Amino acid sequence: MMTKSLKLAIIGGGSSYTPELVEGVLKRLDILPVTEMHFVDIEAGKEKLEIIEGLTRRMVEKAGANIEIKASLDRRAAIANADFVMTQFRVGGLQARANDERIPIKYDVIGQETTGPGGFAKALRTIPVILDICKDIEELAPNAWMLNFTNPAGLVTEAIQKYTQVKSIGLCNVPVSMQMMIAEMMACPPEKLSLECIGLNHLVWAHRAWVDGQDVTAEVLKKVGDGQNFSMNNIFEEPWDPDFLNALGAIPCPYHRYFYQVDAMLAEEKESARDGGTRAEQVMKTEAELFELYRDEELAEKPKQLEMRGGAYYSDASLNLVDAIYNDRKTIHVINVANNGTISSLPDEAVIECSAVVGSWGVRPLAVGKLSPAITGLIHQVKAYEQLAIEAAVEGSYNKAFMALSSNPLVPDITRAKAILDDILRTNHDYLPNFA
Amino acid sequence: MMTKSLKLAIIGGGSSYTPELVEGVLKRLDILPVTEMHFVDIEAGKEKLEIIEGLTRRMVEKAGANIEIKASLDRRAAIANADFVMTQFRVGGLQARANDERIPIKYDVIGQETTGPGGFAKALRTIPVILDICKDIEELAPNAWMLNFTNPAGLVTEAIQKYTQVKSIGLCNVPVSMQMMIAEMMACPPEKLSLECIGLNHLVWAHRAWVDGQDVTAEVLKKVGDGQNFSMNNIFEEPWDPDFLNALGAIPCPYHRYFYQVDAMLAEEKESARDGGTRAEQVMKTEAELFELYRDEELAEKPKQLEMRGGAYYSDASLNLVDAIYNDRKTIHVINVANNGTISSLPDEAVIECSAVVGSWGVRPLAVGKLSPAITGLIHQVKAYEQLAIEAAVEGSYNKAFMALSSNPLVPDITRAKAILDDILRTNHDYLPNFA
Amino acid sequence: MMTKSLKLAIIGGGSSYTPELVEGVLKRLDILPVTEMHFVDIEAGKEKLEIIEGLTRRMVEKAGANIEIKASLDRRAAIANADFVMTQFRVGGLQARANDERIPIKYDVIGQETTGPGGFAKALRTIPVILDICKDIEELAPNAWMLNFTNPAGLVTEAIQKYTQVKSIGLCNVPVSMQMMIAEMMACPPEKLSLECIGLNHLVWAHRAWVDGQDVTAEVLKKVGDGQNFSMNNIFEEPWDPDFLNALGAIPCPYHRYFYQVDAMLAEEKESARDGGTRAEQVMKTEAELFELYRDEELAEKPKQLEMRGGAYYSDASLNLVDAIYNDRKTIHVINVANNGTISSLPDEAVIECSAVVGSWGVRPLAVGKLSPAITGLIHQVKAYEQLAIEAAVEGSYNKAFMALSSNPLVPDITRAKAILDDILRTNHDYLPNFA
Amino acid sequence: MMTKSLKLAIIGGGSSYTPELVEGVLKRLDILPVTEMHFVDIEAGKEKLEIIEGLTRRMVEKAGANIEIKASLDRRAAIANADFVMTQFRVGGLQARANDERIPIKYDVIGQETTGPGGFAKALRTIPVILDICKDIEELAPNAWMLNFTNPAGLVTEAIQKYTQVKSIGLCNVPVSMQMMIAEMMACPPEKLSLECIGLNHLVWAHRAWVDGQDVTAEVLKKVGDGQNFSMNNIFEEPWDPDFLNALGAIPCPYHRYFYQVDAMLAEEKESARDGGTRAEQVMKTEAELFELYRDEELAEKPKQLEMRGGAYYSDASLNLVDAIYNDRKTIHVINVANNGTISSLPDEAVIECSAVVGSWGVRPLAVGKLSPAITGLIHQVKAYEQLAIEAAVEGSYNKAFMALSSNPLVPDITRAKAILDDILRTNHDYLPNFA
Repeated sequence: MMTKSLKLAIIGGGSSYTPELVEGVLKRLDILPVTEMHFVDIEAGKEKLEIIEGLTRRMVEKAGANIEIKASLDRRAAIANADFVMTQFRVGGLQARANDERIPIKYDVIGQETTGPGGFAKALRTIPVILDICKDIEELAPNAWMLNFTNPAGLVTEAIQKYTQVKSIGLCNVPVSMQMMIAEMMACPPEKLSLECIGLNHLVWAHRAWVDGQDVTAEVLKKVGDGQNFSMNNIFEEPWDPDFLNALGAIPCPYHRYFYQVDAMLAEEKESARDGGTRAEQVMKTEAELFELYRDEELAEKPKQLEMRGGAYYSDASLNLVDAIYNDRKTIHVINVANNGTISSLPDEAVIECSAVVGSWGVRPLAVGKLSPAITGLIHQVKAYEQLAIEAAVEGSYNKAFMALSSNPLVPDITRAKAILDDILRTNHDYLPNFA
Repeated sequence: MMTKSLKLAIIGGGSSYTPELVEGVLKRLDILPVTEMHFVDIEAGKEKLEIIEGLTRRMVEKAGANIEIKASLDRRAAIANADFVMTQFRVGGLQARANDERIPIKYDVIGQETTGPGGFAKALRTIPVILDICKDIEELAPNAWMLNFTNPAGLVTEAIQKYTQVKSIGLCNVPVSMQMMIAEMMACPPEKLSLECIGLNHLVWAHRAWVDGQDVTAEVLKKVGDGQNFSMNNIFEEPWDPDFLNALGAIPCPYHRYFYQVDAMLAEEKESARDGGTRAEQVMKTEAELFELYRDEELAEKPKQLEMRGGAYYSDASLNLVDAIYNDRKTIHVINVANNGTISSLPDEAVIECSAVVGSWGVRPLAVGKLSPAITGLIHQVKAYEQLAIEAAVEGSYNKAFMALSSNPLVPDITRAKAILDDILRTNHDYLPNFA
Repeated sequence: MMTKSLKLAIIGGGSSYTPELVEGVLKRLDILPVTEMHFVDIEAGKEKLEIIEGLTRRMVEKAGANIEIKASLDRRAAIANADFVMTQFRVGGLQARANDERIPIKYDVIGQETTGPGGFAKALRTIPVILDICKDIEELAPNAWMLNFTNPAGLVTEAIQKYTQVKSIGLCNVPVSMQMMIAEMMACPPEKLSLECIGLNHLVWAHRAWVDGQDVTAEVLKKVGDGQNFSMNNIFEEPWDPDFLNALGAIPCPYHRYFYQVDAMLAEEKESARDGGTRAEQVMKTEAELFELYRDEELAEKPKQLEMRGGAYYSDASLNLVDAIYNDRKTIHVINVANNGTISSLPDEAVIECSAVVGSWGVRPLAVGKLSPAITGLIHQVKAYEQLAIEAAVEGSYNKAFMALSSNPLVPDITRAKAILDDILRTNHDYLPNFA
Repeated sequence: MMTKSLKLAIIGGGSSYTPELVEGVLKRLDILPVTEMHFVDIEAGKEKLEIIEGLTRRMVEKAGANIEIKASLDRRAAIANADFVMTQFRVGGLQARANDERIPIKYDVIGQETTGPGGFAKALRTIPVILDICKDIEELAPNAWMLNFTNPAGLVTEAIQKYTQVKSIGLCNVPVSMQMMIAEMMACPPEKLSLECIGLNHLVWAHRAWVDGQDVTAEVLKKVGDGQNFSMNNIFEEPWDPDFLNALGAIPCPYHRYFYQVDAMLAEEKESARDGGTRAEQVMKTEAELFELYRDEELAEKPKQLEMRGGAYYSDASLNLVDAIYNDRKTIHVINVANNGTISSLPDEAVIECSAVVGSWGVRPLAVGKLSPAITGLIHQVKAYEQLAIEAAVEGSYNKAFMALSSNPLVPDITRAKAILDDILRTNHDYLPNFA
């Protein structure tokens, strides 16, 4: 990278996570010469954006850093000449997420933000918007790297890579959280632990784990089966059956509970929806409280309470990636990237989540070859759903949308698939112009 | 083929289907010089075997054919020097099948003879026995072709091809039944209809249909969606949603209802189990009646009542295959055969069900290449289950059995998978020495 | 096929082969209701075209057939509403072929019409013209089948399939000639012999041969090694080393001599070029004599002398294909078709030459899977050359042309590759507008 | 890695290169706790081994290092409990290499130590010996890493991985030499240059080059075409045609001259063989001089003259690999490793040379996906040759040996292939017991 100063554009900058990102930038000033951060949001998020602008300006000032903070509704200005574009927006806001969670459980189907019908609805809303953003990047910052955090990150990244020329990497905090939790279990520093991660976004397995070159996979599986902490604070921590982990022979991610432990997870969701509210409804409260804190003109740092919000390590995951690219680190990151033969039975253009080396020249996944049948069936099933969902979103095709939901392993029956699809299309009508 | 006379060995010869097979042989005497049919069965089936022996001898005599009918419990004698070995046995008899149907529905899971946990239990019981038979064939009739009708035919054929040197073809009456039903729908002679069939056994789609070179796929889908007959008499005829067929763009087989229309099929199964008995329990009655008829010393032909039994076209499907091999017909048949690149994302050794050319030199599938995502997810999911189930059966591995059931798309949850597995292992204890 | 009458358009109809094609049509009037044959050619071939028109009209009349013979320079009129379009033209005529043969041998490299630098030059001249023809077919006869005989048939067919929507099949008389010669060797009727043919055009092997279901591959190899006739009358019959055939384990086609027996073939070519003239120069004489015969107003049948011309079985090969499509025969033909997984290590869109089933719905290759390393290296090398040559021809790219020739296994050195390329471009200047 | 001290076993320890390896170990004492180096050789090399033992003991002593130097003819003692086993032996010594160089040029074919028929002969001699060594490692040091330098390194490593359980990595100094030479061309420190290396051993291309994240591939190709130094001191530096480099679009390795510039390289070889002696014959002199120096009891360091010998960077390449494994560096090295989908059209078990990440858990190649046709043809052709050569060596099969040589792109004709093969088998009779 030749530039001596870095401009970051953050789409959806009014997010409550933003202070964590700024904190991460401030921690890395010696290695990342960030001189401009441009937060952009839409009209509906204007108030939050202004609160974020104030807080992050105070943070920068307190740190004595030479970073210009900009906040605007002008996406094109934010993108122009950016070195990195980060996306963390949510079409329809938390209310749309609450719908994504509530609609499926009406039909006795998992209602979750990123997997199952909920993730599907989110994909339909998000993909057209992100492709629009990419057009701006192609025009205004063709050399920029786009780091996509927007969920469902795998689907969205695949859409970007299939339909645009933008250099993009999909990013998720699940793999880094697994790294941290397993390191804690094994009582070793995180950098001593190596994980071979392969799968799809929110469907990633650590196929093997090593500490100091010793294969500790069986030990980790035993600890997970014994009930050691292995969840993230937005997923209900249903315990894992030790026999199942043993049979699987790979370390599932927390989201795998939705695929393997359907009964318990659905029961818990229905109970939550009835009692305390769905996860989105809980987050609405947290968010309101956070923004109340952020308003405080005395506050000039990320408040502790943000950690309860759920996006642990997002800031580190993304800024370590910026570091790897900018400083040509050639370090291993778990990211979402086009398959290109990494998993031999999947198409080249399918986006997978896997361990990859990142340097100034981009991303190269570590080759995997054949996967065990315990893994390959589920990956293919979910990838087929994803391909159909992307095409449905881009083409506004009812047929492909119906087939996508019918192919989703969390939707057990086509009659329910159709009822859920019709409900989603009705409820999200305003956010789905392609389906009008 | 150099031989001028043909010996057929039929393992499980005491089956109620046998008269249909003999009728088929008698119809083809001008093209197939069968001179010996050796029916073999086990001690428990001795009485039925003797009834079959009597009836088929009378049939041969009436036809004035020069065929020696043998019936014995001596499998090795039956196999020795056979030109074709046909398998149609059922380990554990109809009672085991009734268990296969009843156990899963206790856990709100599809209970079916060949798919889901029922088919899995049948595979565990059957595979070790069939591999044993293959050892005899390798020794006593190494040039024989084995035509395997034994369900689950895809799984069993894959086991044979992976673990033995026997030349085998898996066979099912579903594709030929689809050919007949669609031809009837289109009001054309069956030979004018061409179907491009690809999938797995009991999970096969007709991807395209032509009459006289015209693509009639959409028309067929419309007729099936309009409720024209498209079921077989052992599968409940739940109507297909026309929108779904349209979205799928391929003609599903009758068994696909268990995968796509889970709710309705399960509801019907539970009702039947409560009221009239499961399918196996109904068949027990039919069988008793059939054998009562067969005993009749006056009877010298296949009685009409056999057609209600469910195995339509089995005799034609298998004897047409014998004809294609013996007479080097190079005709297209839908059979179960090792993939070898036919579907490019599946392993070479995976057995698939597809259109293939059959001649005296054996079988060659018609290449397919990439499948649409609407198909590929389900195929991979079921094939992964099948691979695990085969290994579980051969190795007696609890882990692989657990993982197999957990990977089966009809089993929605690992907790239920485990409960069902334990129930299956307990109930089938006597037939599963590998798991002792 | 719904049409009750067939129109054939023959591009390059002024060829000396045309009477054989007409003879073939006349032999098949009971199964192919041909009512129109439209021969089209270019200005330079006008005289020959008129001679052909006269002779073929007399042939039709003598046979009492109801076929309208048309001959014109109006390609669009010929193509409009045709059921089959057959191409058999030669850009630059026999003089261009003579150049193709003479240029390489100046550099001690095989000079041959369809392989090596000669075939490359022919591809550069032919591909732009054939893509132009395809545009007419797309517009004027979108349902027509195009049967491409134009060499290099594999390359040309791949170009058609990559760059147009035309339904096309590439066709060559080599496989059918192998079938005839091997049947003669084995003293059996051709229809009793089954060959498993796989490879590329003019680089096709019969991997196995069966007579009556018995594998006779070793026996055929022995006979070929013992010197039994296994050549075609345009290829020098250099004897095969029996040890090599044994090591190869597959039956090479006559053209394989150019790849395996380079030294002897090159020596013979140089001698011929010095003494009797290259193959093209010999053919020029034969052609002149043939057209002298054709002029004879008394002649109303294909003269015997045509057989020496070299294209044995072309008429049968193509009309049997027309029959298979029109009458939905579902018979096996060896044709050039997109790979689609047939050979698993080649790209889906690579055109291969292989055994395939042909019916009214089109063509489906017989799956092959993995090839032995004795075969796979050469196939990949030649296919890489072909891909580069096609792109060079379409794009007029010097770089790709240079890389294509450098990748051709008959060109041993890049310095010679460049010299030959420059010579080809200079000599063919008038026929290569893309390279102007 | 748990061990706190490292034992290195060096098979072929009497090599003149050994002092460089010891120098490398002494430079890395702070990161690699080597406490024992055991050099082993065969009876014929005893004198050289003793000279090496003396010199390296003096080197260790001078450095004040705590390393036990052992030298013996007892291979099993050397291997027992080794952490790393390094192989650098030469079956038949330099005389065998001289034969490898002289035999092919008798037939106007490239005579080279590692490619073409010379490399083939070396593979036949070496593979049985290395598989024998692997049996000892499996028994006596099952956790050891084997670093194989023995040429032809790709072939030999593939044999090890196919036929043994030993953890092995094949290693070559070509990629590191390319890194050094290109960095010098670009006037940047080597660590600033990133190369994407993919191919086979001695047939590896740098597909892209970056300095500081800028793609400089075209610039490097231009410099190489302009005649900047890009050779190694055992390969004749025939200049590259700039147009060819441009067409190729990838940076060839020095050995590619044997494949692309056959005429010039062969001419130079014939001239050398006639005048100064083949490369082996020159090396014999250098070796004699080196050992004369090594004998000197005053010498306690690697003499400068060793650098002329030809194995530049071997010591660094291998010890950096030891470091990456022992210290879990997760750094990128270009090594020989099983493909496992890295290049999607090659078999999983084919050993390729490519950029890979190396850590304490082993090696993981960086995924590549599809290669351009300019590359893929040659790779497949050479890999097919390699597969056949390995099987020939292991099975002692004349047929496979004949087919291997016939498939080698440097052998243009099967008649010459056979003559060369027979010459090789005769000349190497004593070293090829499998072919006796």
